[in-house]
Amino acid sequence: MERVDLLRYARGDEPVDLLLANARVVNVLSGEILDGDVALVRSRIAGIGDYEASEVIDLEGAYLAPGFIDAHVHIESSLVPPAEFARTVVPRGTTTVVTDPHEIANVLGLDGIRFMFEDAKRQPMSMYVMASSCVPATHMQTNGAVLKSYDLAPFRADPWVLGLAEVMNFPAVVGGDPDVLEKLAAFEDLVIDGHCPGLSGKDLMAYIASGIGSDHECTEVDEALEKLRLGLTIFIREATNARNLKALLPMVTPENQQRICLCTDDRQPADLLDDGHIDHLVRVAIAEGIDPMTAIRMATVNPASYFRLGDRGAIAPGRRADLIVFSDLSEPRPHMVFRGGDLVARDGSLIAPSHTGEARILRSTVNINWSEIDLAVPAEGSHARVIGIVPDQLVTESLVEEMTVVDGQAVADPARDLLKMVVIERHRASGAIGKGFVRGMGLERGAIASTVAHDHHNLAVIGADDASMWTAARAAAALGGGMVVADGEAVLAEVPLPLAGLMSNRPIAEVRQALDLAIEACHALGSKLHDPFMAMSFLALEVIPTLKLTDQGLVDVDRFELVPLWTEPD
Amino acid sequence: MERVDLLRYARGDEPVDLLLANARVVNVLSGEILDGDVALVRSRIAGIGDYEASEVIDLEGAYLAPGFIDAHVHIESSLVPPAEFARTVVPRGTTTVVTDPHEIANVLGLDGIRFMFEDAKRQPMSMYVMASSCVPATHMQTNGAVLKSYDLAPFRADPWVLGLAEVMNFPAVVGGDPDVLEKLAAFEDLVIDGHCPGLSGKDLMAYIASGIGSDHECTEVDEALEKLRLGLTIFIREATNARNLKALLPMVTPENQQRICLCTDDRQPADLLDDGHIDHLVRVAIAEGIDPMTAIRMATVNPASYFRLGDRGAIAPGRRADLIVFSDLSEPRPHMVFRGGDLVARDGSLIAPSHTGEARILRSTVNINWSEIDLAVPAEGSHARVIGIVPDQLVTESLVEEMTVVDGQAVADPARDLLKMVVIERHRASGAIGKGFVRGMGLERGAIASTVAHDHHNLAVIGADDASMWTAARAAAALGGGMVVADGEAVLAEVPLPLAGLMSNRPIAEVRQALDLAIEACHALGSKLHDPFMAMSFLALEVIPTLKLTDQGLVDVDRFELVPLWTEPD
Repeated sequence: MERVDLLRYARGDEPVDLLLANARVVNVLSGEILDGDVALVRSRIAGIGDYEASEVIDLEGAYLAPGFIDAHVHIESSLVPPAEFARTVVPRGTTTVVTDPHEIANVLGLDGIRFMFEDAKRQPMSMYVMASSCVPATHMQTNGAVLKSYDLAPFRADPWVLGLAEVMNFPAVVGGDPDVLEKLAAFEDLVIDGHCPGLSGKDLMAYIASGIGSDHECTEVDEALEKLRLGLTIFIREATNARNLKALLPMVTPENQQRICLCTDDRQPADLLDDGHIDHLVRVAIAEGIDPMTAIRMATVNPASYFRLGDRGAIAPGRRADLIVFSDLSEPRPHMVFRGGDLVARDGSLIAPSHTGEARILRSTVNINWSEIDLAVPAEGSHARVIGIVPDQLVTESLVEEMTVVDGQAVADPARDLLKMVVIERHRASGAIGKGFVRGMGLERGAIASTVAHDHHNLAVIGADDASMWTAARAAAALGGGMVVADGEAVLAEVPLPLAGLMSNRPIAEVRQALDLAIEACHALGSKLHDPFMAMSFLALEVIPTLKLTDQGLVDVDRFELVPLWTEPD
Repeated sequence: MERVDLLRYARGDEPVDLLLANARVVNVLSGEILDGDVALVRSRIAGIGDYEASEVIDLEGAYLAPGFIDAHVHIESSLVPPAEFARTVVPRGTTTVVTDPHEIANVLGLDGIRFMFEDAKRQPMSMYVMASSCVPATHMQTNGAVLKSYDLAPFRADPWVLGLAEVMNFPAVVGGDPDVLEKLAAFEDLVIDGHCPGLSGKDLMAYIASGIGSDHECTEVDEALEKLRLGLTIFIREATNARNLKALLPMVTPENQQRICLCTDDRQPADLLDDGHIDHLVRVAIAEGIDPMTAIRMATVNPASYFRLGDRGAIAPGRRADLIVFSDLSEPRPHMVFRGGDLVARDGSLIAPSHTGEARILRSTVNINWSEIDLAVPAEGSHARVIGIVPDQLVTESLVEEMTVVDGQAVADPARDLLKMVVIERHRASGAIGKGFVRGMGLERGAIASTVAHDHHNLAVIGADDASMWTAARAAAALGGGMVVADGEAVLAEVPLPLAGLMSNRPIAEVRQALDLAIEACHALGSKLHDPFMAMSFLALEVIPTLKLTDQGLVDVDRFELVPLWTEPD
């Protein structure tokens, strides 16, 4: 809409399109709840007050708040692409997300990012993108693409790109690595997100002095307060795999609340469908004693301010009519969602038209020359480094165990909960394979395989025997990527993820059901982990301590280097 | 400094330049006061903590806060150019100002703005500029330049330009005037300041919907709260001529404080020298009961956030080392001021080198063809419109009085406090002259003249007789602009303002003394106004109600049109 037309409606010269009458307007700007009628015209808010309108919806005293903004999310973790993600979260009140398409970028590079843009078009949600800064995350793995500063710089011109995504390689930042500094320099006038778990003191000073503006990796109040005091905006995260919300809420004070946002980072289908999205975080925050106004600010105007999205995040003339309606301030549960002036969801169901007609052209991404792959681990000593899973944590323990050796080969020994794990490079068919052992998965038999393995997303496989591992691995590849549970030659369950080996092209409810069945199959095989696939996906992430496995081999994250499998006893 | 070097110091690899030890650090980010040592390297803060340093200053528990930011100031109103203004306000803790060079732009257009940039260079203060949006303010006067959107757009590329300056012609905005909307569109992705005294309801909705982000014209809490709730950031102003601070402070709440800034707008030499600058506003705010943290935030991080100046406004790694030191939190009076890491002022005195060697090339701006000027007012009726001065207000009353007529000419009648006023066009020697009468100036004899007459800055003259008026007017012109008091043929006092007829090229203390003497001379002639020159300068401003006089004649501001001098009795 032309500005001159908007002014005409704001002045009240002619009837607006829609009046949301008798609202309790949550004014996140002044921190007040004020009775009012909100006038919408096209995608915008024309004004608040006594307006003539073509259509009136009487809100009968319900609360009207700005639509929620997720300050940091990897949509790929929902296992569905942006359009289906939008269909999932919009009915829950999310009208804007800021995403780092980091997972697909590690698989498909710029093509992957463009796919996300394309899929997000014409959806009832605004998807802003932060240019993925760490592709690849480190040199200790093989991923599908390399994005340098000159690859990322052109994104600056895209109105949907707000800046540089979480700079995860914090040792490189602190150390002044030229490649990373070049990326920071390319985006220094825009927003730069951070990621620095546990960083403190002078290293944190250096990280912040580099120009980075946020962090979403805090796990404790003291850590978060140190970072906030030094200038970082804190995104409190409640992901499926990393739940920091309750631990961090005590940090929020009236004095610092405007520098705190909410984000989901990575949330799986079941959590999105059962608990919700940002609305869930808001409800939990309020239940934990946070003032509802503050909770809503952390999900609306705060991220809008941080990301310089002056056109949203508040109910005011000229801003986008991204709005939610709910009845209970102590437990906001949107029963109407407006996006750009359109009623797009009602009573938890999407009512906006769903645009899925676009042909998705995405090349197959599982490229493995199976004739080069060998799962055997020749015994080269008595003791080996073993990855120790810590339930519900991304960090692992670095163990040393005596290996069970059969015919000169180190083998899985499920009786001791020692399973074999391999990571097979799947982008370039290079034949690279990392091999190791893991404790804590608990499979008594069979194997699991998945092409979701952060951040390189190679094919990760864990099993009690090589035959099951081979079956699971081949089946995952045959799906064009996905998750598989196998036992011997039998495939027990599978979750096809043909989009980059990361996402499904099916409705999220189907994906969730398939994943539920796959997890049940794992449990039937003996695993007691809440979600063995998620656990496995982070065993391959070589930027989070302590011992991890990539296609290049075992990584000692504390030493930030590859280490041999075989070692001396402790 | 290269970012990579800064990181080295932040990490503590080598000694920083300066450590400000044992400080009570005013952390405006978290709203806390925390003991700490602040490490500076070159122009930046490297970190807070235990750093080796080449030099240590022990602050012995004094408070360390970010340097003050004036969110909106017309430097010309100090009657000195930017360099001398900096020398005046830096010792008072101001390290950054956001200025609208609106006065000189109305006289000299782009040349005037460039002069301000040039004069601000190499001073111990950052002068950011908002591109002047209203040159000329209206069509009902003659000024020295016209700036269209295509004149202003190139300023976008200047790193010292933050956006578009106060859009004063609010009726044009509300009405959707194409010329104004074009300017708004040219700056819509940057910051756009507003100016909308008394605007309310739907007209305010339209004004805000146009994309404007601030207002500094509020005089009452209700007005300010309405504007804040609808999205405007409120600049609380304490100018020489418009003192809104105490009236507006009750609006400040913990919930809305982050959307409120302090500004001075227009402050004359005596106020700057006697009371101070932003430091004065901070002290008054605290004295009025505002929490010191909140008062300091309104003068530091709040304007920095609003203007997207992420490199300042807080004490944090990587930000500019613009800092003040003071002893009493209940009455902050900076005894040290650092700007970009340099100690630039101590105990209220500037110690930074003063760069005034640059030759200022500025053409003479008083161009009047005196042979065309005639002060006589032929009587064309019995009653005339008369401007009624309201002491200490910019608004005037619109009176109707019976004129005293001598020899067919309407003349001043000091016995009835009816003085003649003329505004002589002084930019183009067009011969245009507006003539009228004024009540409330109180001169019993003599006349005053000044080339400071908002915003067109034509030559305004008020007197008890034509001879005195003629003397004052000619003398002001002979100075190349300035303020003059005359009686008959005698010049009693003068304040030379040769820089655009707005500013002096002498030290501010001399300017202040000359102005004091001129005001004393006015008082000796019978005026009881606090500052007759300031009062006169706003009698010519045709955008503030009710009756004003420009070189085109009398303006009825409410009707927004020129009106005849002669009228019917009420």
